[in-house]
Amino acid sequence: MRLLFVGDVVGNLGMKMVEQYLPLLKKDLKPQVTIVNGENVTKVGRGINEKLFKQLMNAGADVVTLGNHAWNNEEIFSFIDDTKKLIRPLNYPGKDVPGNGYCQLNVNGTQVAIINLQGRIFMEETDDPFAEIDRLVEQLKKDQVKVIFVDMHAETTSEKKAMALYLDGKISALVGTHTHVQTSDAHVLNKGTAFLTDVGMTGPDDGVIGMEYEPVIKRFLTSRPSRFTVEENGSKVLSACLIDVDNQTGLAKAIKPILICKEHPYVG
Amino acid sequence: MRLLFVGDVVGNLGMKMVEQYLPLLKKDLKPQVTIVNGENVTKVGRGINEKLFKQLMNAGADVVTLGNHAWNNEEIFSFIDDTKKLIRPLNYPGKDVPGNGYCQLNVNGTQVAIINLQGRIFMEETDDPFAEIDRLVEQLKKDQVKVIFVDMHAETTSEKKAMALYLDGKISALVGTHTHVQTSDAHVLNKGTAFLTDVGMTGPDDGVIGMEYEPVIKRFLTSRPSRFTVEENGSKVLSACLIDVDNQTGLAKAIKPILICKEHPYVG
Amino acid sequence: MRLLFVGDVVGNLGMKMVEQYLPLLKKDLKPQVTIVNGENVTKVGRGINEKLFKQLMNAGADVVTLGNHAWNNEEIFSFIDDTKKLIRPLNYPGKDVPGNGYCQLNVNGTQVAIINLQGRIFMEETDDPFAEIDRLVEQLKKDQVKVIFVDMHAETTSEKKAMALYLDGKISALVGTHTHVQTSDAHVLNKGTAFLTDVGMTGPDDGVIGMEYEPVIKRFLTSRPSRFTVEENGSKVLSACLIDVDNQTGLAKAIKPILICKEHPYVG
Amino acid sequence: MRLLFVGDVVGNLGMKMVEQYLPLLKKDLKPQVTIVNGENVTKVGRGINEKLFKQLMNAGADVVTLGNHAWNNEEIFSFIDDTKKLIRPLNYPGKDVPGNGYCQLNVNGTQVAIINLQGRIFMEETDDPFAEIDRLVEQLKKDQVKVIFVDMHAETTSEKKAMALYLDGKISALVGTHTHVQTSDAHVLNKGTAFLTDVGMTGPDDGVIGMEYEPVIKRFLTSRPSRFTVEENGSKVLSACLIDVDNQTGLAKAIKPILICKEHPYVG
Ligand SMILES: [Fe+2]
Ligand SMILES: [Fe+2]
Ligand SMILES: [Fe+2]
Ligand SMILES: [Fe+2]
Ligand SMILES: [Fe+2]
Ligand SMILES: [Fe+2]
Ligand SMILES: [Fe+2]
Ligand SMILES: [Fe+2]
Repeated sequence: MRLLFVGDVVGNLGMKMVEQYLPLLKKDLKPQVTIVNGENVTKVGRGINEKLFKQLMNAGADVVTLGNHAWNNEEIFSFIDDTKKLIRPLNYPGKDVPGNGYCQLNVNGTQVAIINLQGRIFMEETDDPFAEIDRLVEQLKKDQVKVIFVDMHAETTSEKKAMALYLDGKISALVGTHTHVQTSDAHVLNKGTAFLTDVGMTGPDDGVIGMEYEPVIKRFLTSRPSRFTVEENGSKVLSACLIDVDNQTGLAKAIKPILICKEHPYVG
Repeated sequence: MRLLFVGDVVGNLGMKMVEQYLPLLKKDLKPQVTIVNGENVTKVGRGINEKLFKQLMNAGADVVTLGNHAWNNEEIFSFIDDTKKLIRPLNYPGKDVPGNGYCQLNVNGTQVAIINLQGRIFMEETDDPFAEIDRLVEQLKKDQVKVIFVDMHAETTSEKKAMALYLDGKISALVGTHTHVQTSDAHVLNKGTAFLTDVGMTGPDDGVIGMEYEPVIKRFLTSRPSRFTVEENGSKVLSACLIDVDNQTGLAKAIKPILICKEHPYVG
Repeated sequence: MRLLFVGDVVGNLGMKMVEQYLPLLKKDLKPQVTIVNGENVTKVGRGINEKLFKQLMNAGADVVTLGNHAWNNEEIFSFIDDTKKLIRPLNYPGKDVPGNGYCQLNVNGTQVAIINLQGRIFMEETDDPFAEIDRLVEQLKKDQVKVIFVDMHAETTSEKKAMALYLDGKISALVGTHTHVQTSDAHVLNKGTAFLTDVGMTGPDDGVIGMEYEPVIKRFLTSRPSRFTVEENGSKVLSACLIDVDNQTGLAKAIKPILICKEHPYVG
Repeated sequence: MRLLFVGDVVGNLGMKMVEQYLPLLKKDLKPQVTIVNGENVTKVGRGINEKLFKQLMNAGADVVTLGNHAWNNEEIFSFIDDTKKLIRPLNYPGKDVPGNGYCQLNVNGTQVAIINLQGRIFMEETDDPFAEIDRLVEQLKKDQVKVIFVDMHAETTSEKKAMALYLDGKISALVGTHTHVQTSDAHVLNKGTAFLTDVGMTGPDDGVIGMEYEPVIKRFLTSRPSRFTVEENGSKVLSACLIDVDNQTGLAKAIKPILICKEHPYVG
């Protein structure tokens, strides 16, 4: 099973990059499942709506994951319950959390689970991601799901690596999101789980994690409120990774980072 | 001017990697200044002492930088004041902070400043890094210092990128440390400052940012105290970057990430 | 049912205050259940051991509660499982957490539950206190437990008040601990639950929340490590509150704060 | 010198309490200087505008202090520079911070300084409050200012107590704000500085620190965005304190907490 995962799509430029390169990547790399993190896809960089979700699916996504910004566009509440291919972090707290934390696909007879999980260090209070993933992975194993992919939306390198090592040998891959910068540590862990601390973002590349830099710097300089706006011009980046999984064992054979940007133009 | 910067050296395995590869890197790449972050070089992974500082210098470091762990080994207070080539973050607060936040070298007639700076988001309370670097860079410019390198020890991608954009065109390079995982975004910013969000760490590679993973996972699972210990076995990594600076303008010509690990063996 | 609750007992001076005044308070106020928070009772101000637990019980405690410092003295693991009258926060995460999060007493035929709960804002990551208390209170109601007291160990005023309002009418009383300073808002909420944001601490009163002030100020001034030590001299305080509960409804009739210190000497 | 200090006035109900009781308090207690914290006085509970500032002054305030919400209503930028009796925290970072961090009054020939200071633990990044207050107090001493009052806007009890002990004997009084709940520890420290960890808030008393409780509880239950609104009905509170200072020494003779609420009706 070959999985393609595209990191946090930010604003209009992020959508442009997806629409321009995702078809090419799919044609060249032939992934069987394509996952896109869409938590920042609105033009203000926070949340998603139904139109943009469909646009991501039309561009080639099979499943869209989210993160801490899942709920920032209120339109989400109107369609997430009926949209099985859009998943929010599994471990959001409370009763009757809208939507689902994972989805299951049948890919030519192989069961594939895509899970969205959120970390807690320096983030919103959520249910214990270790306990939640434990329960879900156990259930998926019982259901004979072999291929399990986790998009772990978290701030610190330590929480993402600890979670990957905790799940090593039990899932196919764990890839981090949220910091919007790709790390260079893609590798298969000792027991067979593919890992990448953070896949990075997709969208404007000249600002600060997708935002125009002047207001961000102003906030750092003054600690006073400052309205952040998504960068609409300049360089763009697409950050992704490609994972090959052995369908029999559910373990990873390889993970390869993908970067398309000014320094790394797409060569196909 | 060619600068080589090696990221956070962790424990015994970190020192081994430095002693094994730094001479080779220097022979092959011929940097004129070699900087090593030594904030985790003791065997417990926190702080530095005089013996280890000298060992880093003997292995080829010209300057050793630190970070939030600067003060964790109390021996530092006995020698940092007299050790100009060992620098702690510039913006530690208080009167009469031991040691210095930067050092200045004369490299074949070119003045080079190496600065250690610490971020504040999700970290210890320190003085404003933006205000402090502003003052220092202005003074260095007056003193005709052309080549200015900043090791910015910080947690978030946003604070490091914001600082780099704030200083773009005014300094030669800003490279992040502290997260212990190398990012894949090394590039020269639009106005000429080289940037890498995090250079990554040097030392044990199988655990969690240098630590054995069982106690770290135990802490995540229980939120109870758990004694962390530096990994003493298994795979090792050396994370670094190479920066070429135009001596006339003080701006960067190129920045190249360096990784030596199981997945990326050293090829010279 | 009359309950007496004594806030965080800190170090040797804290134990002295308990031994000196708890017998007097019990004689004068005639509580049927006496609860003491003992999370800081060791001489270093962190954790508890079996000897000190017994000393608190001998001084008049019926139940001892804890908090985030529950686990700081490792001796706790050797006796908490067998010590039903010593309870740790209900919502510590993980499987097989040592000890219990509540205890149940039969007081002259009336069932009384004492619960220890921990907040999450600016504190260790724990399981959702709202979800955990919900489950437990429902179970206690089924078991015909009428009188329910919660020691909520939390940092912010907002989390403690929100929890009290969430439980208003369902439990007898919620009293906060952890900030070590008594608040002046003891009152019965609209639906009958007694509330006090924080009951305050018991022990040395001249320092910073029980600690000698020089090292604490030094830490604030320098952001460098500084060893904190419990104040062993000077003024002392005992902070407590008295709650009267209607045994039929389980609701509070009154809550009265108690302070014994230099400014408020004990008058009996 | 007698000072009256009223804690964070929240929304419409807060203003009502000020307009109803401040004239009575002034008539009965005869303070020579009346200070009101107005950081939450807009109807949304965040920030201040010119009309509300004037309303507070008309109700009897001589000086209005602020806090972390100083900048939440953008109208502040249009008048704070010209409004010497409205002060924002001294230690906001950056160049040319609008407004002033303190103001100086001549009260029948005695110089009185009112300072607004902000803490850093669990709050916005600001300049070092210890270093900033040091500089200002030294300057005020040189200028023969005897009476110095500090409104320290901070989250934790430890930072407020540490600051008070740091300044003990050098200033007349330090009173905390920000947690919106009055503490019961008003006293004069050993070297003569009056202290109260938090004076508490003024306004709606039934919700969570002035806000309606349903949205606050919803946020705690779900960790999803929830619009907070100021409570417009129900019980009200006014929290304040009265401080008597010796004009010759500048040290405090007494500090007395004031609470007007359902449980503590005003008796004059
Ligand atoms: Fe994102
Ligand atoms: Fe995110
Ligand atoms: Fe480090
Ligand atoms: Fe660090
Ligand atoms: Fe405590
Ligand atoms: Fe505590
Ligand atoms: Fe406030
Ligand atoms: Fe505030």
